[in-house]
Amino acid sequence: MNVLIVYAHPEPQSFNGALKDLAVSELTILGHQIKVSDLYAMNFKAVADGGDFQQRQDERFLKYAVEQKHAVKTESFSRDIEEEQEKLVWADFVIFQFPIWWYSMPAILKGWFDRVYASGFIYTRENRYDSGGLKGRKAMLSVTTGTPKGAYMPNGMDGDIHEKILYHINHGMLYFSGMQPVEPFISWTPSHDEEERKMYLEAYKQRLHSLSEQPIISYHPKAHYDENHQLKKEYQ
Amino acid sequence: MNVLIVYAHPEPQSFNGALKDLAVSELTILGHQIKVSDLYAMNFKAVADGGDFQQRQDERFLKYAVEQKHAVKTESFSRDIEEEQEKLVWADFVIFQFPIWWYSMPAILKGWFDRVYASGFIYTRENRYDSGGLKGRKAMLSVTTGTPKGAYMPNGMDGDIHEKILYHINHGMLYFSGMQPVEPFISWTPSHDEEERKMYLEAYKQRLHSLSEQPIISYHPKAHYDENHQLKKEYQ
Repeated sequence: MNVLIVYAHPEPQSFNGALKDLAVSELTILGHQIKVSDLYAMNFKAVADGGDFQQRQDERFLKYAVEQKHAVKTESFSRDIEEEQEKLVWADFVIFQFPIWWYSMPAILKGWFDRVYASGFIYTRENRYDSGGLKGRKAMLSVTTGTPKGAYMPNGMDGDIHEKILYHINHGMLYFSGMQPVEPFISWTPSHDEEERKMYLEAYKQRLHSLSEQPIISYHPKAHYDENHQLKKEYQ
Repeated sequence: MNVLIVYAHPEPQSFNGALKDLAVSELTILGHQIKVSDLYAMNFKAVADGGDFQQRQDERFLKYAVEQKHAVKTESFSRDIEEEQEKLVWADFVIFQFPIWWYSMPAILKGWFDRVYASGFIYTRENRYDSGGLKGRKAMLSVTTGTPKGAYMPNGMDGDIHEKILYHINHGMLYFSGMQPVEPFISWTPSHDEEERKMYLEAYKQRLHSLSEQPIISYHPKAHYDENHQLKKEYQ
């Protein structure tokens, strides 16, 4: 299948870099087609602004989502955005490789979502979540943490990794766009121990060999919600 | 008191801009000292990288948090980071004004946290959450949404605004740094209706007049967790 790896770390020799390199080599061996968006190496523009459009619907007042819809219709996104959108359309599976910084993603990757995940391309008023623009695709987070697993358990000090921390990404970005997010691959505080890094690389290799069989995170489809966006009684 | 407003929106005429302007004028009338970090106007650098340090502990391998600690000791952050840190030290109360984009903050503001909220300044291994570097200060999010309130209720389609969406900010960034986060001010889909915008501006004015009395979001202090970062039985 076609696999896009979106990778955000400033240091190529980092453990995040090693996980990205391993994914490229293993998935290539397995016969997949690979594209990598190495956001730091690309010097990817992180900040959404008026410069993201080759022409504007309204030059005097920037409503970013309105200009995104206009750019979809007129094919007038800046070239760097267009290239990322083309990769998403091409991909069957997208891996996001990044360190958890401040309980979310590095700004350069957030900027990728702000700019590439455009209104009219990813979603419309009617089509989002299971009917989002990227439906038919799967996605997986591969993240590293700076604090240990215990802190991210349901009663942990940092908050449940799935329900509290990664929810805004897995549900709010990936599932919102129509992709099916699979369970994340999490390397807990890998910077502290060489043996642990080896163990995680081996485990990640196994994960890469079974990408298609990974369980999908189960979220409700849009049809389970009523006209006030509330989960219908029968599904609660 | 000293109030810092950190503001992130690309369009000065936006409703976010109006909320920021209102905060400046009302808080000035009330006799407070105000500083504003208008991140778009400042062309604030969003992407954390090696250029954030005037000298490096290790030029060959960028461990960002290690270099942050080194920069705290040697006072060698880039000037733009240093200025923001000085504002935080000066402030008694910090307001973050931004639109919710992709269930989080715009990348330019995430980059502000990545770069300004430095290891050794905001936190150490021992001091974080209620003993974080900014303790004694309060903070409040003032955010706008693109989807209606119903979608952000506990059974809403987008996820509970407090428990699922803003948690990584209120708990993971503000509370982590030692600040006491107060209840956010939320303007639901203000772009749709002129009357609603007026109503929100009036309500925000009232909020600004009673900043000190706003209820603080209650999170567990560090002492409630055991050595494995798990909430002790008696507090569950």
